[in-house]
Amino acid sequence: MPSADPVLRKELFDLPEGLIYLNGNSLGPLPRHVPERLRRVVCDEWGKLLIRGWNLGCDGQGWVDLPARLGARIGRLIGAPEGAVVAGDSTTVNVVKALSAALELQRADSPGKLTVLSDSGNFPTDLYAAQELCRALGRGLRLKVVAPEEVADAIDDGVAALMLTEVDYRTGRRHDMAALTARAHQAGALAIWDLAHSAGAMPVDLAGADVDFAVGCGYKYLNGGPGAPAFIYAAPRLADRIAPAVAGWMGHAAPFAFEPAYRPAPGADRLRVGTPPILSMVALDAALDVWEGVDLAAVRARSLELSERFVARVEAACAGELELASPRDPNARGAQVSFRHPEGYAVMQALIAQGVIGDFRAPDLIRFGFAPLYLSAEEVDAAAAILARTLEARLWDDPRHRVRAKVT
Amino acid sequence: MPSADPVLRKELFDLPEGLIYLNGNSLGPLPRHVPERLRRVVCDEWGKLLIRGWNLGCDGQGWVDLPARLGARIGRLIGAPEGAVVAGDSTTVNVVKALSAALELQRADSPGKLTVLSDSGNFPTDLYAAQELCRALGRGLRLKVVAPEEVADAIDDGVAALMLTEVDYRTGRRHDMAALTARAHQAGALAIWDLAHSAGAMPVDLAGADVDFAVGCGYKYLNGGPGAPAFIYAAPRLADRIAPAVAGWMGHAAPFAFEPAYRPAPGADRLRVGTPPILSMVALDAALDVWEGVDLAAVRARSLELSERFVARVEAACAGELELASPRDPNARGAQVSFRHPEGYAVMQALIAQGVIGDFRAPDLIRFGFAPLYLSAEEVDAAAAILARTLEARLWDDPRHRVRAKVT
Repeated sequence: MPSADPVLRKELFDLPEGLIYLNGNSLGPLPRHVPERLRRVVCDEWGKLLIRGWNLGCDGQGWVDLPARLGARIGRLIGAPEGAVVAGDSTTVNVVKALSAALELQRADSPGKLTVLSDSGNFPTDLYAAQELCRALGRGLRLKVVAPEEVADAIDDGVAALMLTEVDYRTGRRHDMAALTARAHQAGALAIWDLAHSAGAMPVDLAGADVDFAVGCGYKYLNGGPGAPAFIYAAPRLADRIAPAVAGWMGHAAPFAFEPAYRPAPGADRLRVGTPPILSMVALDAALDVWEGVDLAAVRARSLELSERFVARVEAACAGELELASPRDPNARGAQVSFRHPEGYAVMQALIAQGVIGDFRAPDLIRFGFAPLYLSAEEVDAAAAILARTLEARLWDDPRHRVRAKVT
Repeated sequence: MPSADPVLRKELFDLPEGLIYLNGNSLGPLPRHVPERLRRVVCDEWGKLLIRGWNLGCDGQGWVDLPARLGARIGRLIGAPEGAVVAGDSTTVNVVKALSAALELQRADSPGKLTVLSDSGNFPTDLYAAQELCRALGRGLRLKVVAPEEVADAIDDGVAALMLTEVDYRTGRRHDMAALTARAHQAGALAIWDLAHSAGAMPVDLAGADVDFAVGCGYKYLNGGPGAPAFIYAAPRLADRIAPAVAGWMGHAAPFAFEPAYRPAPGADRLRVGTPPILSMVALDAALDVWEGVDLAAVRARSLELSERFVARVEAACAGELELASPRDPNARGAQVSFRHPEGYAVMQALIAQGVIGDFRAPDLIRFGFAPLYLSAEEVDAAAAILARTLEARLWDDPRHRVRAKVT
C-alpha cells in the first residue's frame, strides 16, 4: 500500500496524461499557471506598457527589480537571508562571478593561495569555467580536480577556493556541505557551492553552513522552464567587499545615473550584471508559486521514501541486470538514483518509448529523479515494473533505441 | 504630404491604438505573432515534450542549437558570415567575453599593449565591464576613456583594444566604424564594436569593415522583448584562436561528452557558455521574422527621412525652447534624435501622458527613436505637433510630471 502523500500537489503541474516524469533533475515540468502569467506579461505589459513595463510591469512591481525579488524567493528555499541572493545569468556565468570574487578576496588577503580545488563529480561546466578563468587570470592560479572522496584530505594551505556541487549529477552522491565548508575555512579557503541538484530538492542551509558563495539552477527542481535564469548567493559578511570579474550596469550603486565609473551596489546586488531577461524570469517567478506553504523537510523525506521504494523494487525484480551507481544510504544522496547498465542508452530510450522519462549519462548511467511535488508512489511502482519488464523482455534490444540523439 | 512608405509594416506589430512609439531604441514593440509562438513552446514543447524538447522542440529543430540559429539570422542583418555570430547572455556579459578574448590575443602577440580605449559616449555598462575586467586581470591593463571626437587621435601603440559603441545612446552620434577599425589595425589594436543601436536600425557590414569582435542587443531594434538575449560576433580569421575568460559547457567541442577538461568548439561557437534561456530566445527568434524580405538600406533611408522631418517640424515650431543634441548631419547619427531641455524629464512625462512615448536621459536629454517598420510619417508629424503644444502651453509644468520614476 502506498504510504501517505503529504507533499503531492500534481494538480499544480501540466503533465501529459499517463507520462511518468522522473527527470525533474534535468528539466522540471510546466507549472499549470505559468502560460497565463507569461501571456499577461507579453501581451499586456510588453505589448501595452512597452518601455513603461520596467517600472509598471509585474502587476505594478516593475520588471527592473525581478532579479532581487526572485533572489529573495529562492533565498527562502536555500537558507539565505533576505538580500543575499540575486537571480540572473546562467549557472556557468554565476560560477565565474563567484569564483572570480573569491579569488580576488584571496589575492588581497592570502596571495600565496593559488589552487581552486574541485572534484570529478562536479558538473563539467563548473570545471570548464574554473579552468578558463584561472588561465585568463594567470598569476599561477590553477584548477585541481580530485575524486569526490579525496576532497577533504586535499584541502591544504594552498587552496584559495573549494568549489563543489553538493549533489553529483551522475550518481546523486551528496557532499557534506557544512563539514567541507568548515574544513575549507580551517585551511583559510573560501567555499563555493553549486546547488543545481539541491535547490528545491531538499532543505539547504547556506547561512547555517557558513557558505561563502553559492550558485544554482532555475530549471531543475525549481521548474522555471528550459534554460531558466540561475541564481547566485554571497554571504552577507563578504558581499560588501567582493569584486567579481564580470560586472555591469545593473550591479552599479546607481544604475540609472549613468555615471562614467563603476561603483558597486551594496551587498549581493553587485552580482547583477546586464539587463535581465524578463520573459524567462517571469516564467521562473510564476513557477516559484508552487513552493508556497511547502515544507522542504517533508519534500526531502518523501523524496527519499520514493527513491528507496524504487531501488527496492528494481533490485528485487532485476537482480544482476543493473548495478546501483548511487550511494545505498539514502542520506548520502540527493533526490536522484542512478543505475549502471552496459546498454544504458538503449534501455532509457525503451523506457521513454513506454512513457517513463528519465535520462542517460555516458557511458552507462540511467538516471531517475524523485520530485514528490508531482510524483506519486503509484507512479514509482509503475516505473519500476516497466523497467523490470524492459530488462526481462530485452525491450531495449531494438535497433531504433540504439541510435544516439544529440541530447539525452 | 507624407512621402511614400516603402518599409512600413505596422500590421506585424501589436501596438496600442493611438500610441506613437518613438522608443524602439530602448525597447522594441511586440511583434504580433510572438505570443502564439511562445505559447506553443511553453505549452506544447516544455509542457508535453519536457526534456525531449532539447532535441525535438522548435518544431523539430531542437532547442539546443537556438543560439547558433539565432546567431545566423542576426548575422545576416549585420554583415556577418554564417557561423560567426551566436546569441545568448546579456550584452554586458558578451562585452566581457569579447574584451577578454581580445586581451588574451594581445597578451600572446603584443604583451606591451595594455590600454583598452573607449569613449565617454559608450554606454556605461560597457565601461563598467571593461573597468572591472581590467582590474581583475591585473597585469597593468587599464581602461582609458576619451571624448568621442578624440578617439582617432588616441589610438596609439599602447592600445590593445579599441572598444566603442557605434551609435551614442544619448545623442545618436555615429562613429565611422570602418575608418576607426582600420586606424586601430594600423596601430596593432583589435576593434570591438557594440551594435546596440545599430543592429536593425541601419545596414552594418562587420565583414566589410574587418571588425574583430562585435556585441549587440536583442531588445531594441530587433524587438526581441524586455531583456532579450544579446549576441556576439568574432571574425572568422580569429575565432579558432580565441580564449575568453568566460567559458562553459555549451562552448565545448563536445558538450554532451561531459569530458573533464575544457576543449573549445571550433569558431564562434566557443562563445556560447551556459544553458540557453529558451523562452526568451524563442521570443527573439519569432521577432526576427519581421525582417524577412526587408532591405536595411531602405530602412535606413526612411529612418533618416522621418528623423529629418521631425527635427525640421520641431525646430520650426519650438525655436529657442529646445536645443538639438544630435548631429545635424543625418549621416552622422543613428536612428534616434535627442534634444536638450532644462526640464527634459517633465517634458517627456507630459509627452507620455499624451501618448507620445520617447524617453529621458539625465541630465536634460529627451530622446526619440525612428524605427520605420512601425512608424509612419503621419505619426511623426503628430508627435512633433504634440511636443510643440507641450512646450508652448507649458504642459510639462505640472507637478505630477516632476516626480522621478526609477527608470525613464
